[in-house]
Amino acid sequence: MTQDREPVRQRLLSEATRLFAERGFESTSVQEVVSAAGVTKGAMYHYFDSKDDLLHEIYGRVLRMQMERLNRFADGPGTVSERLHSAAADVVTTTVDNLDDSKIFFRSMHLLAPDTRKSVRAERRRYHERFRDLVAEGQRDGTFRTDVPADIVVDFFFGSVHHLGTWYNSEGALSGAELGTHFADLLLASLRPE
Amino acid sequence: MTQDREPVRQRLLSEATRLFAERGFESTSVQEVVSAAGVTKGAMYHYFDSKDDLLHEIYGRVLRMQMERLNRFADGPGTVSERLHSAAADVVTTTVDNLDDSKIFFRSMHLLAPDTRKSVRAERRRYHERFRDLVAEGQRDGTFRTDVPADIVVDFFFGSVHHLGTWYNSEGALSGAELGTHFADLLLASLRPE
Repeated sequence: MTQDREPVRQRLLSEATRLFAERGFESTSVQEVVSAAGVTKGAMYHYFDSKDDLLHEIYGRVLRMQMERLNRFADGPGTVSERLHSAAADVVTTTVDNLDDSKIFFRSMHLLAPDTRKSVRAERRRYHERFRDLVAEGQRDGTFRTDVPADIVVDFFFGSVHHLGTWYNSEGALSGAELGTHFADLLLASLRPE
Repeated sequence: MTQDREPVRQRLLSEATRLFAERGFESTSVQEVVSAAGVTKGAMYHYFDSKDDLLHEIYGRVLRMQMERLNRFADGPGTVSERLHSAAADVVTTTVDNLDDSKIFFRSMHLLAPDTRKSVRAERRRYHERFRDLVAEGQRDGTFRTDVPADIVVDFFFGSVHHLGTWYNSEGALSGAELGTHFADLLLASLRPE
């Protein structure tokens, strides 16, 4: 039912996400993805060049959404602490809301063709740079400590975010929003000058 | 030369680590591991039950070493802040010193047989619990904030540690010890009561 209403491209992405999460990217064939989506291989190749391209897009669409949200928080109103806190809490929430995508991606990134991997890394770098600029803004105006480089702060925080797929249980007691608040509180506190 | 002096068991682990890191766990056969180590399959099966068992042991030996070091810091002299700082900085350094093991493990954990995965998870849980107890000790005596649960603090910090394999470059400017100090500084600051 849902299948029929979902456009082919979306359906292919949803089924690929489900299969890659259940069986692993390496053990899922293009044939299995198209069968599950109820389309022909020809239809799939109209939208995606390869299995690599599917994986790239599964993560890419989350990353684009997160980039857009980060820009909105970073350029929005409020002090630099408030804007960083909102951005940090939000990326935890959206990662938890799309946990399969993140889980699949970090497990399988090393299996992507070098060019695809390079292009994803570049997209993620732009995201991290925008986040780092926010940390650096607070360092310049004296809100945040300056003895830890802003790049290290970003790697520290996003290690925790990217690793959520390995332990976070959406059936557990803690919602994505609550976890986001905790992580953002820890990040902001870690940046207070001594 | 080195090969000849290394005991067979060690040689198998070293070659498996190298091959899994280069080609992926999924694309490396037992035959390739034994050929690289210059031993027979029979000799390998004397030490390891399966390819799963090799992966388990690659991570297991690092985890056991880290557990031993954590116990030494946790039970050692100093305030709870000093002990937590030392333990946190040290686990970053030892992870960076054994980066291939950690990288392989987090990429491939989902490919392990359920029983093996369960047993590794149990070993890691013991490590995390010891670390969490240290955080909880500081929460009880008023050194650390109590509004973020100790378990969340552990997941936050170890996300960053476990994710090092995806970005840390040992050829880069920052040594494992320097990175460890930065991460430990951020952790300790994040725990200061408001």
